[in-house]
Amino acid sequence: MTVKAFGAYAGDKPLEPMDISRRSVGPHDVGIEIAFCGVCHSDIHQVRAEWAGTLYPCVPGHEIVGRVSAVGAHVTSHKVGDLVGVGCIVDSCKRCDDCSDGLENYCDHMVGTYNGPTPDAPGHTLGGYSQRIVVHERYVLRVSHPEEQLAAVAPLLCAGITTYSPLRHWNVGPGHKVGVVGIGGLGHMGIKLANAMGAHVVAFTTSESKRQAAKALGAHDVVVSRNEDEMAAHTKSLDFILNTVAAPHDLDALFALLKRDGTMTLVGAPATPHPSPEVFSLIMKRRSLAGSMIGGIPETQEMLDFCAEHGIVADIEMIRADGINEAYERMLKGDVKYRFVIDTASLAA
Amino acid sequence: MTVKAFGAYAGDKPLEPMDISRRSVGPHDVGIEIAFCGVCHSDIHQVRAEWAGTLYPCVPGHEIVGRVSAVGAHVTSHKVGDLVGVGCIVDSCKRCDDCSDGLENYCDHMVGTYNGPTPDAPGHTLGGYSQRIVVHERYVLRVSHPEEQLAAVAPLLCAGITTYSPLRHWNVGPGHKVGVVGIGGLGHMGIKLANAMGAHVVAFTTSESKRQAAKALGAHDVVVSRNEDEMAAHTKSLDFILNTVAAPHDLDALFALLKRDGTMTLVGAPATPHPSPEVFSLIMKRRSLAGSMIGGIPETQEMLDFCAEHGIVADIEMIRADGINEAYERMLKGDVKYRFVIDTASLAA
Repeated sequence: MTVKAFGAYAGDKPLEPMDISRRSVGPHDVGIEIAFCGVCHSDIHQVRAEWAGTLYPCVPGHEIVGRVSAVGAHVTSHKVGDLVGVGCIVDSCKRCDDCSDGLENYCDHMVGTYNGPTPDAPGHTLGGYSQRIVVHERYVLRVSHPEEQLAAVAPLLCAGITTYSPLRHWNVGPGHKVGVVGIGGLGHMGIKLANAMGAHVVAFTTSESKRQAAKALGAHDVVVSRNEDEMAAHTKSLDFILNTVAAPHDLDALFALLKRDGTMTLVGAPATPHPSPEVFSLIMKRRSLAGSMIGGIPETQEMLDFCAEHGIVADIEMIRADGINEAYERMLKGDVKYRFVIDTASLAA
Repeated sequence: MTVKAFGAYAGDKPLEPMDISRRSVGPHDVGIEIAFCGVCHSDIHQVRAEWAGTLYPCVPGHEIVGRVSAVGAHVTSHKVGDLVGVGCIVDSCKRCDDCSDGLENYCDHMVGTYNGPTPDAPGHTLGGYSQRIVVHERYVLRVSHPEEQLAAVAPLLCAGITTYSPLRHWNVGPGHKVGVVGIGGLGHMGIKLANAMGAHVVAFTTSESKRQAAKALGAHDVVVSRNEDEMAAHTKSLDFILNTVAAPHDLDALFALLKRDGTMTLVGAPATPHPSPEVFSLIMKRRSLAGSMIGGIPETQEMLDFCAEHGIVADIEMIRADGINEAYERMLKGDVKYRFVIDTASLAA
């Protein structure tokens, strides 16, 4: 099946309309009419070949929501007409310990929603900036939000699960004081989720102008990290820090805010490493520096259900597909609150 | 009371004999005739002013064993004649969460056995390179090893607990595969302890010459870390890495050996940070980099009891007090298997 998409033919070319093919719906597959697709920073890195190994044509997009249009004969978990989502993962080995534990995101053979290996044409996966997609049922999530929120649900499939998974894994909840560093696509979800989990949330930003916005998102305190007095007021008081900043920055100043046994988890991946933290920052209070990548399929479902129950969606700005190149430029300037979402109906026009 | 000791009057002077005073035994104090004192790398850093804030005269030594010679009126946990030990800690606030949790090592007001603040003359604590010491009963440990092993027990008070605490905290035991990096004073204890806890132990060394020695200590596998094939054979297979190396080195090559959710804990503190690890090393398998410092008093007692039960002591080379300057030079060349211990009887001569 041929469908309309938006993608790039080379790393130095803008994204443009293209026709791509989707495989026919196999026995375990779900065919999905894509309604909306969120725009993630990873999309820019991949399509512009800033990460190694980009295959062209490249159609980005891994924050996909839509409606089931077809199901294979053996599909039991989804039916035609259901609202569903697809995130960063469309396949994995299904046999390793990671897959068995429902942590397909850590499977050595995890297949990304775009730029991953596949027998389907053209030999690599093509993402959600497109009208339709066909995905094995295991990697398709149920959306129980009201349909009018569907566009704002899209970013939950990457920004939501990337922040939800570490908050859950490190047991954030009532009685915890949690720092969220960076107030962008990931950070704004981190604040909302940590608040809904019952934690006391401290947002860290480099920008005085984001103070009110962070409070509106659910932060109980906001620290402008260049202000040493504001930083010092939280010394050794945080149980956990979710660090969403992808640019290299000083980690020691943040470690000083963690209690004994506190963990700072990185979910942003800078192109070059952060300045190396002082070993004493870790040793003195048995602190940890950790990393976390997206989340597994069962916990992605759990996150969507949690968000529906708590009325949580992303804050978005809707765009047409042909506005994607301009949107990328605005994202690189930090000019979005907090996620662009493509209305894929615009692909048909 | 005046006692003989060995210490330095300045960072650029060798250690020499000196007389120091010990406070009288207070109601909660234990007076100890020191029999042996282990020689830790920290002693060199401190006495040579390689760490900030060394106070002189400086008498190092925090791996102390001996016999109780006096107890205060309110002391209930020790009696005259008992074999006891004193480690790195001789006081703390006794009120904070860390102290309440038996983790006095993380107390913000922890007082080190040497160079710590004290009302006693000369205003800072003086360590175990001396004939006697007076310590609050809370920080005095019971030694249940046979007396003939006493000298080899001394290094357990720092090298032992520094490796035991993280192995226990990160739940090392049967079914675990554990890496121990570095085979020196700390590492040789880490191998013995991890083996006794029932783990499969992989020792990492830069030196081919240590291969047999590591096996003799209890390592099931030994990897010469410059050998890429040997390293690759353990890819993504370790549950935990205890890294005892205090010199800056590449952490990414070690992270690659950790399973999902694996932790590498640093117990060596280099003067300059390690090369910064790649964020992807952490993110790809939700790995952690942690630090751990010594251990609390209850777990130090637990460690001593565990070692007595399993017949574990350090491998030592006994020296006289006046051999300390030469011993330091040999330690800096790595020429000791694996810990020097001062026979404090030599102070009287």
